[in-house]
Amino acid sequence: MDSVEKFPVQRVTRESRNDIEDIVTKELPLTIILDNIELTTLLCSPTDLKYLAVGFLVSEGLLKGKDDIRKIVVDERRGVVRVEAVEGKEFAPGVFKRLITSGCGRGVSFYSAADVQGQTKIKSETTISSTAVFTLVREFQHRSQVYRTTGGVHSAALCDTGSILLFNEDIGRHNAIDKIFGECLLKGISVDDRIIITSGRVSSEILLKVAKRNIPILISKSAPTDLGVRLAHDLGVTLIGFVRGGRMNVYAGGWRVMTNGK
Amino acid sequence: MDSVEKFPVQRVTRESRNDIEDIVTKELPLTIILDNIELTTLLCSPTDLKYLAVGFLVSEGLLKGKDDIRKIVVDERRGVVRVEAVEGKEFAPGVFKRLITSGCGRGVSFYSAADVQGQTKIKSETTISSTAVFTLVREFQHRSQVYRTTGGVHSAALCDTGSILLFNEDIGRHNAIDKIFGECLLKGISVDDRIIITSGRVSSEILLKVAKRNIPILISKSAPTDLGVRLAHDLGVTLIGFVRGGRMNVYAGGWRVMTNGK
Repeated sequence: MDSVEKFPVQRVTRESRNDIEDIVTKELPLTIILDNIELTTLLCSPTDLKYLAVGFLVSEGLLKGKDDIRKIVVDERRGVVRVEAVEGKEFAPGVFKRLITSGCGRGVSFYSAADVQGQTKIKSETTISSTAVFTLVREFQHRSQVYRTTGGVHSAALCDTGSILLFNEDIGRHNAIDKIFGECLLKGISVDDRIIITSGRVSSEILLKVAKRNIPILISKSAPTDLGVRLAHDLGVTLIGFVRGGRMNVYAGGWRVMTNGK
Repeated sequence: MDSVEKFPVQRVTRESRNDIEDIVTKELPLTIILDNIELTTLLCSPTDLKYLAVGFLVSEGLLKGKDDIRKIVVDERRGVVRVEAVEGKEFAPGVFKRLITSGCGRGVSFYSAADVQGQTKIKSETTISSTAVFTLVREFQHRSQVYRTTGGVHSAALCDTGSILLFNEDIGRHNAIDKIFGECLLKGISVDDRIIITSGRVSSEILLKVAKRNIPILISKSAPTDLGVRLAHDLGVTLIGFVRGGRMNVYAGGWRVMTNGK
């Protein structure tokens, strides 16, 4: 399914009104079902639904690796992805309940005390030069095509210090990152010592989602929240924001960012 | 509680690194409890929590008017708002279950078939000149102060065709609008024939949230999704997007927008 669609639109100024066609980003309600249990319905861009569903399950701690999955069936038309885990795969008691009661985006399943306590500090000794950050973000901007045409989506990328490895887009900040993680799991791409770039704000949920994958460096075009910054310190994530016009703000873990000077 | 906080930040360029202080927007997990039932936990900016909680309950159809409320207790430090409905107030069976299973932001409670079918088309004959739209949006921009300092929040406003009546901000698009609706309910401010301006994308959820309050005109600085546009047509909402540089896109209900020309 395409992620955008043409619509008839009136272009209006003070004096004039013209009928034009404009490109509008599409929005699909996607229901994710794991072993016949309906977990959530996400509002998403209708692309890479398999990656999104798997990435969501990874982020929620319900899938660890490709071997956990027996079957994935995507029904694009009805907006449903059914994932079947391998036989004998047991989910921790309470995990579904937690998900269903407060796990959906607006909730704080990602930031429950249990989640954070179970999360060990990231020890990766990866570093990156500020010049490399600027180069990656310029390339990231270049690839954010849907945003440029419709102004309506977020982008996310997985990088090493030299280049962008995976790139995806979605109307949801969380979804764009989950699509990346889903693709990594299904294709066996390692995220160790890698970098995530996001176009969106870094809230506590985004920070924890990335820290859970043991990713040491998170770069945002936008701003973090105070909880995002606090979690970055607590979990050992290097958090870079506001990368614009040859400068950036480093909110936590500045030792991983090298400059030509000091 | 302030909505922003100063943090030590490293400002990094290719060659230099300077310790500065930067303003970061705050994020609070807010749990909303209605008659001892924990409904949801929103991630929000820690201001006007009473408005937010009441607005959320209004948007979810759980409160109709101020007379429905017996008591509101805000515990800012713990991030909890407890609302007690008047005795004898009965909630429709299943409404809590729906809320709890899929009602939180990422879900589609707002866009269930039942919701849309129960929604009548908006009949308001309010019109607005394109010049008035530009004036309102300019004033809206002017008031988006937190965004200008931290780049991290969304704004929403309630207007008539001449001026902004209420204005609020939140890290969540939905929350900013719910704060407006909560203030309206608690202060007895009518929303009939009024206009909502939002800084954020108009997804199906935002469109339906506004249509449920019978508001005929929705203006966004940003883009709508295809479902947002379809719902605007179905529900009789005038949907204006991309108001920038002396022009706007009218996606639905163009008859309510007047120009000096045709």
